[in-house]
Amino acid sequence: MLTKAPHLFDDATSVAAGDSRWTGATSDDYWAFVGPFGGVTAATMLRAILEHPQRAGDPLSLTVNFCALIAQGPFDLDVRLIKANRSTQHWSVELTQGGDDVATFATAVFAVRRPSWSYQPAQHLPATPFGQTRPYPKSGLGMSWVKQYDFRFVEGEPQFGGSPHLTPASAFSRLWIGDTKPRPVDVLSLMSMSDAFFGRIFHVRNEFVPFGTVSLTTYFHTDADDLAAEDISHVLAVADARIFHKRYGDQNGELWSPNGRLLATTTQIAYFKA
Amino acid sequence: MLTKAPHLFDDATSVAAGDSRWTGATSDDYWAFVGPFGGVTAATMLRAILEHPQRAGDPLSLTVNFCALIAQGPFDLDVRLIKANRSTQHWSVELTQGGDDVATFATAVFAVRRPSWSYQPAQHLPATPFGQTRPYPKSGLGMSWVKQYDFRFVEGEPQFGGSPHLTPASAFSRLWIGDTKPRPVDVLSLMSMSDAFFGRIFHVRNEFVPFGTVSLTTYFHTDADDLAAEDISHVLAVADARIFHKRYGDQNGELWSPNGRLLATTTQIAYFKA
Repeated sequence: MLTKAPHLFDDATSVAAGDSRWTGATSDDYWAFVGPFGGVTAATMLRAILEHPQRAGDPLSLTVNFCALIAQGPFDLDVRLIKANRSTQHWSVELTQGGDDVATFATAVFAVRRPSWSYQPAQHLPATPFGQTRPYPKSGLGMSWVKQYDFRFVEGEPQFGGSPHLTPASAFSRLWIGDTKPRPVDVLSLMSMSDAFFGRIFHVRNEFVPFGTVSLTTYFHTDADDLAAEDISHVLAVADARIFHKRYGDQNGELWSPNGRLLATTTQIAYFKA
Repeated sequence: MLTKAPHLFDDATSVAAGDSRWTGATSDDYWAFVGPFGGVTAATMLRAILEHPQRAGDPLSLTVNFCALIAQGPFDLDVRLIKANRSTQHWSVELTQGGDDVATFATAVFAVRRPSWSYQPAQHLPATPFGQTRPYPKSGLGMSWVKQYDFRFVEGEPQFGGSPHLTPASAFSRLWIGDTKPRPVDVLSLMSMSDAFFGRIFHVRNEFVPFGTVSLTTYFHTDADDLAAEDISHVLAVADARIFHKRYGDQNGELWSPNGRLLATTTQIAYFKA
């Protein structure tokens, strides 16, 4: 008899081991417009490396290229250790379905993080604490993945449903992000949360337009020990955009611990039709 | 008889076509501490895709993972079109030497950019014009690649040679970057210039420490037509860092045309020993 994982997120990102060929499946609980939520796809690919017997160290960077739509159902993950040395590993993961072309392609760097000089020039602005910030009402948003997250905007909360903005609004947001059913933040949830911002273009135009992430890169600035010491179930997330031009726009973001530690930084380039 | 390309940069990034296997060679003109300047390696890998007969559209993103040192001499480039649809292409390029393991691994997205709504929320601060900004004296820097660029700091010029800073200095710089022998800015030079910032840790600590880029991602916000219309030979470059921790630090940057257009954005994670 199948036992469900204790959290939907762990269920959604679960993988089964092969030699180099691993398997997974899309989750109806984390579904977006026309395919799985990209953050969970990215986290699933990261999990396949994390659970690989040859893995050493913690994720340092993950880049995911979304090449084609992923259909509802099972997929194969071709996990390859490209190069390893004493303290770093370079991996690639190809996601395919039914022997078709690659639908998603990821490259990752893992590293054994050693003690060093440490300095964090970046600081986050003071924010209303999570417990005192109003949860974002998601009743108007049909996508299931949105329901799995507890978004609490400190700044830049969108007001979808009105008329589109005639002059562009700000692309900047600051918000708390946690799992709706609280789950300790680990590298997998950081990976997923780094793609959990609403498309910047929705904020700027105050309307939904066809949109899809094309390439996503996230850097991890903590190792597993650092993250365990934080012992948190939500992050303060910051996102902004710099340009929308000829069907593509960027997004850059930061994920902070409530204690003021920068956990991860992320950037993506996304398609839009407007 | 071999004819040298008209510009050292074109010579350094030249590739010879095969079917999927292309060849290139390191350039003594663009050498860094212990291997080739990463920007030129990235540009060479990008050129192999650009000159590939199946290539369609312009580069949208390039991620390069530096897996191992590249030795002086020739290398092979295994160029693979992972997935293509009507308007985008996903590529990978593996750089190997003498049949050894992969030394550098790149993934790229190309796109046919079509007209759309266009909006650039980001603006750059006013800067002293290129012609009125003092060229950075490079006499103390032995690396050949540095000689190929004309750096002119508007803000944050480093003063290497003094004693290391006891309290960290700013990681932020704004500077003009052009080729020392002027060359029109194209996607290849944008790619290279996106890695042409001095390591942020050198600025912050005012000393050279062991340093190497591990993963670099650059997004292009212009297509070839946009860039040709700019008709420029230098860019205004902005770079900053957010964290240095357990041997790794980040960098993020922007490359602007003198006319105020955002041409490319870039981020990287780099190893340091300090």
